[in-house]
Amino acid sequence: MKRIGVLTSGGDAPGMNAAIRAVVRAGLKNDISVIGFKRGYNGVLMRSADQGDDFSLMTARSVSDKVHRGGTFLMTARCSEFLKEEVQRKAVENLRSLGVEGMVCIGGNGTFAGADALNRLGMPTIGVPGTIDNDLMYTDSTIGFDTALNTACECVNRIRETSDSHERASMVTVMGRDCGDIAVHTALACGAELVMIPEIPWSVEEVADRVKWGVMRGKNSMIMIFAEGAVESLTTDVEKLCAQHECLRDVSLRHITSSQIAMMIEALAQHETRATVLGYIQRGGSPTSFDRILASRLGNRAVELLRDDVGGRAVGIRDNHIVDVPIEEGKQSRKGADQALLDLIATLS
Amino acid sequence: MKRIGVLTSGGDAPGMNAAIRAVVRAGLKNDISVIGFKRGYNGVLMRSADQGDDFSLMTARSVSDKVHRGGTFLMTARCSEFLKEEVQRKAVENLRSLGVEGMVCIGGNGTFAGADALNRLGMPTIGVPGTIDNDLMYTDSTIGFDTALNTACECVNRIRETSDSHERASMVTVMGRDCGDIAVHTALACGAELVMIPEIPWSVEEVADRVKWGVMRGKNSMIMIFAEGAVESLTTDVEKLCAQHECLRDVSLRHITSSQIAMMIEALAQHETRATVLGYIQRGGSPTSFDRILASRLGNRAVELLRDDVGGRAVGIRDNHIVDVPIEEGKQSRKGADQALLDLIATLS
Amino acid sequence: MKRIGVLTSGGDAPGMNAAIRAVVRAGLKNDISVIGFKRGYNGVLMRSADQGDDFSLMTARSVSDKVHRGGTFLMTARCSEFLKEEVQRKAVENLRSLGVEGMVCIGGNGTFAGADALNRLGMPTIGVPGTIDNDLMYTDSTIGFDTALNTACECVNRIRETSDSHERASMVTVMGRDCGDIAVHTALACGAELVMIPEIPWSVEEVADRVKWGVMRGKNSMIMIFAEGAVESLTTDVEKLCAQHECLRDVSLRHITSSQIAMMIEALAQHETRATVLGYIQRGGSPTSFDRILASRLGNRAVELLRDDVGGRAVGIRDNHIVDVPIEEGKQSRKGADQALLDLIATLS
Amino acid sequence: MKRIGVLTSGGDAPGMNAAIRAVVRAGLKNDISVIGFKRGYNGVLMRSADQGDDFSLMTARSVSDKVHRGGTFLMTARCSEFLKEEVQRKAVENLRSLGVEGMVCIGGNGTFAGADALNRLGMPTIGVPGTIDNDLMYTDSTIGFDTALNTACECVNRIRETSDSHERASMVTVMGRDCGDIAVHTALACGAELVMIPEIPWSVEEVADRVKWGVMRGKNSMIMIFAEGAVESLTTDVEKLCAQHECLRDVSLRHITSSQIAMMIEALAQHETRATVLGYIQRGGSPTSFDRILASRLGNRAVELLRDDVGGRAVGIRDNHIVDVPIEEGKQSRKGADQALLDLIATLS
Repeated sequence: MKRIGVLTSGGDAPGMNAAIRAVVRAGLKNDISVIGFKRGYNGVLMRSADQGDDFSLMTARSVSDKVHRGGTFLMTARCSEFLKEEVQRKAVENLRSLGVEGMVCIGGNGTFAGADALNRLGMPTIGVPGTIDNDLMYTDSTIGFDTALNTACECVNRIRETSDSHERASMVTVMGRDCGDIAVHTALACGAELVMIPEIPWSVEEVADRVKWGVMRGKNSMIMIFAEGAVESLTTDVEKLCAQHECLRDVSLRHITSSQIAMMIEALAQHETRATVLGYIQRGGSPTSFDRILASRLGNRAVELLRDDVGGRAVGIRDNHIVDVPIEEGKQSRKGADQALLDLIATLS
Repeated sequence: MKRIGVLTSGGDAPGMNAAIRAVVRAGLKNDISVIGFKRGYNGVLMRSADQGDDFSLMTARSVSDKVHRGGTFLMTARCSEFLKEEVQRKAVENLRSLGVEGMVCIGGNGTFAGADALNRLGMPTIGVPGTIDNDLMYTDSTIGFDTALNTACECVNRIRETSDSHERASMVTVMGRDCGDIAVHTALACGAELVMIPEIPWSVEEVADRVKWGVMRGKNSMIMIFAEGAVESLTTDVEKLCAQHECLRDVSLRHITSSQIAMMIEALAQHETRATVLGYIQRGGSPTSFDRILASRLGNRAVELLRDDVGGRAVGIRDNHIVDVPIEEGKQSRKGADQALLDLIATLS
Repeated sequence: MKRIGVLTSGGDAPGMNAAIRAVVRAGLKNDISVIGFKRGYNGVLMRSADQGDDFSLMTARSVSDKVHRGGTFLMTARCSEFLKEEVQRKAVENLRSLGVEGMVCIGGNGTFAGADALNRLGMPTIGVPGTIDNDLMYTDSTIGFDTALNTACECVNRIRETSDSHERASMVTVMGRDCGDIAVHTALACGAELVMIPEIPWSVEEVADRVKWGVMRGKNSMIMIFAEGAVESLTTDVEKLCAQHECLRDVSLRHITSSQIAMMIEALAQHETRATVLGYIQRGGSPTSFDRILASRLGNRAVELLRDDVGGRAVGIRDNHIVDVPIEEGKQSRKGADQALLDLIATLS
Repeated sequence: MKRIGVLTSGGDAPGMNAAIRAVVRAGLKNDISVIGFKRGYNGVLMRSADQGDDFSLMTARSVSDKVHRGGTFLMTARCSEFLKEEVQRKAVENLRSLGVEGMVCIGGNGTFAGADALNRLGMPTIGVPGTIDNDLMYTDSTIGFDTALNTACECVNRIRETSDSHERASMVTVMGRDCGDIAVHTALACGAELVMIPEIPWSVEEVADRVKWGVMRGKNSMIMIFAEGAVESLTTDVEKLCAQHECLRDVSLRHITSSQIAMMIEALAQHETRATVLGYIQRGGSPTSFDRILASRLGNRAVELLRDDVGGRAVGIRDNHIVDVPIEEGKQSRKGADQALLDLIATLS
């Protein structure tokens, strides 16, 4: 190949810039020129008034001073119309008109679906896993996961200090709508007392019992990690619970928030409980060395595959080795909690 | 004096440990023994089953390895019954029975009210300003404010990276129920585009206009800092606004959250807007060098005053000099935004 | 087993506390009591005047609030006399007198030699790899390595900013007397231009050429990572070089320092070059989530082995799985650079 | 004025970018265009082959995303030939040819000398104090000092953890060739046991005595902060000392390093002592909120002065108020330690 393209799509993840850098530099080393498309698949569709705003030719200098930056300098966006085949065909046409012979698409499973489509339409495409959620089955780690974990741990450290000072229970809600991986790893790393994830049913009553039990043992300050999506596996009859407690009459039954769960726990356990939602803080930040190295290796591997005329693969890391699998397989999302880690949290807390 | 007591009360603030350390070490240097009371005024009331859990005699070693820790190792709590004079009298009685001849009380204006009461009942007491809110009129800085600012700035850095990657507007809600100081300083330090505080009326419509205007100028990513209490100075008729926009029908009119304000801005400006509430993350964390030095100087000064048989004063820093004022004056809370800083934010954004 | 002991020995590493915590908590969960020995093997030899200073019985509370702390609260020390068999016999005798039936020894290869000796003398002992150097052959990672890498990357970020501002070449010396692993991973993670390690010969002339070549291409600011031990593989005839350059006449030939190498590079390349030695900064710091989780898993595994009456093993992680090998094998140190990573650094810089 | 210039010169300091940003944005707000000169006074002399490399017209966008970055994006360099009047005249000529009517020069006393010269030759010039050393008499703080302090404290935290684990004395050398301000503030903020600065004579014997005394009291781990320039006030007869101790025979008498001082202390105190030199790590890093706000206020004030046709002033902060003094006065460097802070360190350690 003489020319390839690279883009980042879906939610941003720390380490995406390191992956772009690796694609560009490894491309140039292999005498392949690299075009960077902006805002994910939108850039390939070239809809901006000013085309310079859709893509640009990358030089070694374009990716200087980027390896340690969070976010993605190519920017990212979702592109729902890319689900339509006519739009995908238009994309391949655009790529060919620019002389692009292969693509590297960095993102999560939505991104991989687009990459799969491009590949099926004859544009060899490699998927690189960039998402903090670590929810892809085929790879042990995705780029951004390690950084998100460390950010969450740092925030929990801060919260633990104020929690200890006030002897209260603190709920910390971390990212993870469908996959509890961030929550489980954060809980283990921070020595949290409890962890609630979408994959495992739980009830407010049971959590409140654990808090009460902790207080009886003299453990007034507790950290409980909740995955964002944990509310999905909540088995408590909230309506009934709120009817029983005068102090819960303000709880909205339509949209249960972390603060409301904290209020319920406090009401049942009779122990001060406060909630913090980490939110977008977990997305940014300078990537950890692990994520930078992973991104560098995966970006480089993606270029090697394209150079060897191989497309339709997702690159990843499994048992410490760089691997590649059919991109269709790459799209499969991981669910189900790691029981060994959950047991370890219970053993050590 | 032969013996004094020290306590931390109200919300915890980074640097409280450095202040306790200074009181203990300066006490010992002046041949004054120091008792540390736990959980604020509750410790003085000695209600625990186990009295060792209420107070203990401090040694130089008790405060080793504490200067750089967040929170307060003496723990803190509010103590509403301390408003009653009979309870205050009981406290003074308890202190006398332990041979305590003076007190250092570290906290905000609630703490100072208690300190004032002790002093009036004949127990010489010094107030040390420990609160992240910086809402005390008599001192340019309170212990914890500088750390909270730096924590907020670090979080905003992270949010800005993801905001830039997605070209969205980001609302960041920082501490400050009545006082916009953290918000104003954070906005200036982070180069935020807008800042909303309780002291200044604002409307969702106006903010949305600023966002639209930014987008027209090509500034898709924006940072807007909101003080927690900014919702109090919101002049928008939310009910009417929600009635006009189909997408806002889920907004709860009873309790307006940051997320709901973001939804309103997005609806009006037609530009993606997301909210993050920093919450308890701002409370913890290793204190900055500024806060540690301020705490050391104020703690030491408090002991010097008691040593010289002076009570009823609040120590602080004004125009770079350590000062002390009558504690009654110290209780007065500061309101009103610093117009010069607000103008500077407008000039530089 | 009814009772086991735990100690940390050799250089401290972030995550040692998390490992001790896991041993204690997993022990208690398995109805095994745990004694913590202080200052490595010295504690087992019980030489202190005050025996409470040599060891103590651990409770669940002893390891509260420790998982995120750097260093080791059991303290560590080298113990050269432990090489003598009579001393080792005395240690086993002491352990038996305390009812200790098994040991967990956390450290590097020196620590493992002691553990091997204890095991041979009939005290079942498990080695846990705690060293920032990552120089043990049998495990892909040692506890502390990931943290040391991230600390080094953070320091390099700071140095890069000042290096860019002054357009100079910056040499950064990281830990690693015999093993270049920290240097290679730091260089890859930071996008460094060059890396020098003990395993690969290099010359000042060649580095200076690379600097000159960079300057000619317009790259005035460069980062070069040196392992501490890289001076061992230096092939330059320093005496001759210094004789040729007036400005190098102060270079001491007895003990070549990083600053002196920087002077030589500057003299040859005619481009400003400055050195920074990270030193002990790399040892401390709150462990990363990776190190805390690894430490938790390995500490727990060590207890499981002892519980099942297995001794004489070193636990580690290989291809993402927890493994154990004969402790004799565990002692073998790793040398030889990872050529694939070195190639990747060359490709991406 | 219609057009002004801005430059950074001398050693870089965190917050310089925030100051440049303030000058540019405040300029534009006042209808003044701003030219940024690169590499300090070198840019004004326009010696590069490519003039685009010497200066460029700044827009509001040029300073986007800069407020939180360390270093200076205009780069900096020393320019010794700027001491000659003919060169200064050439600079003023160049500035006039570009339509520049006033200058803002950001840096330390060397920079202010150049600014003074420009002003005397009829080019109204304002000095802004940007240096981590805090060695200017007229201002309580210089831009960069607060950040350097916090960086030093963070490094000392890391070193303390490893120092505690090994029960050793640790010497930490911080910036400050002539002025001990960073050392004194770091020592106070970190709870260091000792501090050595260029302004106060000290001997190795005395430090060793303090270490011995600490060990006798059970304080095995100690932190001693040394200013870089402290070796100048060393009163020990090193030659004699080395002659007395076999283990010191390798000490070079020509150039005494921190490591050698640590060896001497260890030899005399018979207690393990290790040295770390923070070096260039202290220069970089994202500026603290204090430095960003100070830089914003001072940069803005500089523009206001030029707008009002005032030149020849240095802006600073004194007793919490923004002030300006004749630039000649601004050049005066501060010496002499703050005795009150030194006493406080002694009281609290």
